[in-house]
Amino acid sequence: MLFFTQCFGAVLDLIHLRFQHYKAKRVFSAAGQLVCVVNPTHSLKYAPTRCAAAQASTEQGILPPCHHHEAVHDPQLVPCTCPLFSCPWEGHLEVVVSHLRQTHRINILQGAEIVFLATDMHLPAPTDWIIMHSCLGHQFLLVLRKQEKYEGHPQFFATMMLIGTPTQADNFTYRLELNRNQRRLKWEATPRSILECVDSVISDGDCLVLNTSLAQLFSDNGSLAIGIAITTSKVHSSEAEV
Amino acid sequence: MLFFTQCFGAVLDLIHLRFQHYKAKRVFSAAGQLVCVVNPTHSLKYAPTRCAAAQASTEQGILPPCHHHEAVHDPQLVPCTCPLFSCPWEGHLEVVVSHLRQTHRINILQGAEIVFLATDMHLPAPTDWIIMHSCLGHQFLLVLRKQEKYEGHPQFFATMMLIGTPTQADNFTYRLELNRNQRRLKWEATPRSILECVDSVISDGDCLVLNTSLAQLFSDNGSLAIGIAITTSKVHSSEAEV
Repeated sequence: MLFFTQCFGAVLDLIHLRFQHYKAKRVFSAAGQLVCVVNPTHSLKYAPTRCAAAQASTEQGILPPCHHHEAVHDPQLVPCTCPLFSCPWEGHLEVVVSHLRQTHRINILQGAEIVFLATDMHLPAPTDWIIMHSCLGHQFLLVLRKQEKYEGHPQFFATMMLIGTPTQADNFTYRLELNRNQRRLKWEATPRSILECVDSVISDGDCLVLNTSLAQLFSDNGSLAIGIAITTSKVHSSEAEV
Repeated sequence: MLFFTQCFGAVLDLIHLRFQHYKAKRVFSAAGQLVCVVNPTHSLKYAPTRCAAAQASTEQGILPPCHHHEAVHDPQLVPCTCPLFSCPWEGHLEVVVSHLRQTHRINILQGAEIVFLATDMHLPAPTDWIIMHSCLGHQFLLVLRKQEKYEGHPQFFATMMLIGTPTQADNFTYRLELNRNQRRLKWEATPRSILECVDSVISDGDCLVLNTSLAQLFSDNGSLAIGIAITTSKVHSSEAEV
C-alpha cells in the first residue's frame, strides 16, 4: 500500500513538473528558448566573514569593496566567487565553474536566451536560486535571492554575473524579463564580474529588485519565470535610445 | 548689491534648468519626445479618511476596495480621484481634469511619448510628482510617489492611471522606462482607472517600485527622468512574446 502511495506521489510530482514546463513554454514561446526549472537552496544565516579575504588581483586592479577586508593570503585565490551563503570555499577563477557544478550541483545551460523557472517562491528568506548559463564563449551565473533587507519584509534580488574579470564583463549586456498578467518588467545592465562579490551587488540594490507583492503578481503557482538574454555590447549605446 | 546677488541666483537657476533639459534631451533623444520638468509636491501626512466614501458606480460595477469604506452619499461623486494626500475634494469624473489643473496647478502635456523629469528626489517622504498626459483621445495621470512603506526606508512608486473608467483603461498599455549608467528598467502594464484610488495601487505594490539605491543609480543631479509611452492594446498579446 505504501509502495503504491509513493508511486502515486511520484507520478503527481512528475505531472506537476510537466505542467510547470508546459506553462513556462506557453508564456515564453519564442523559438529556441530553453526552460529550466530551478529548485531553491535554503541558505544558512549570513556569515559576516564570508568576504573576509579581500579580492584577488584583476586585470583592472580595481574592485568594489567587500565588507570586512583583511589581508589576502594568496592573491590568486578568489574568496567571494561562490555565492552560496554557507560556503567557505575559495579558489582560482578558472575552477569556479567546476566547484559550483561538483560541490553545489548547479546546472549549466547553453543558449543565448533561456527561461529560468524558480520554484517554491514562498520559502522563507534567505533562499537562493542559482543557475549557470553558458553562451558567447563565457559562463554566467544567475542568482535569484530572497532576503530580508528590512526585518519582516523579504524581497527578491536577481542579478547576473560573469565568471570572469570585470574587463571581460564590460563586453556584455544581460536582460532579465518578467511577463505575466498583462504586466512586464525588464532589467538590462552590464553583468558584474563574479570577483565583485554577489553580496555587495545585492546589498547595493544594483540589480532587479522585487517586493513580495510584485513577485506574487509575476508568479504562477508558486514559480517565477525569468526570461534571460545575453548580448555583446561593444559600443554601449543604450543611453541614446529609449 | 542684493539686487545683483538675486539676479545672479536667478541666472544660475535658469542655467541649471536649461542644463537639466539638455541632459534629459540627450538621454531621451528619440525624435518628438517632449521633456517636462516636474517639481515635487510635498504631501501632508496620510489621512486615513481620504478614501472614506466608497467608490462611485462604474461601467463594470467592480472596483478594488479602498480602505475604510463608508456609505456613499452620491453615487455620481468620485472621492478618490485626486491623488494628492491632503486634498479632501470629491466630484464627478468629468471634472477631475479641471480640478487637477485649477486647484493643484498640475500641467497637462500632449503626445504619445514624453519624458517626465522629476526634480529634487532627495526630499523626504511623503512627496508626490504628478503630471497629466493627454494622448489617444484620453487623459492620463502619472503619479510618482516617495513613501515609507517600511519606516526609515523610503521607496519610489510610479504608476499611470486613466482619468476614465476601468473598462476604458483596459484598452491601453503604458510603459515607464528608466535609462542611465548602462542600466535600463522598463515597466509595462495596463493603466488602472483613476476610480480605483492611487493609494491602493501603491500599497498593493502593483506599479514600478524603486528602492532608494536604485533611484539614485538612475538619477542625475537629483532628478529622475522617466520615459513614458502609451499605446492601445486591443488584443493583449504581451504574454505570448518575450
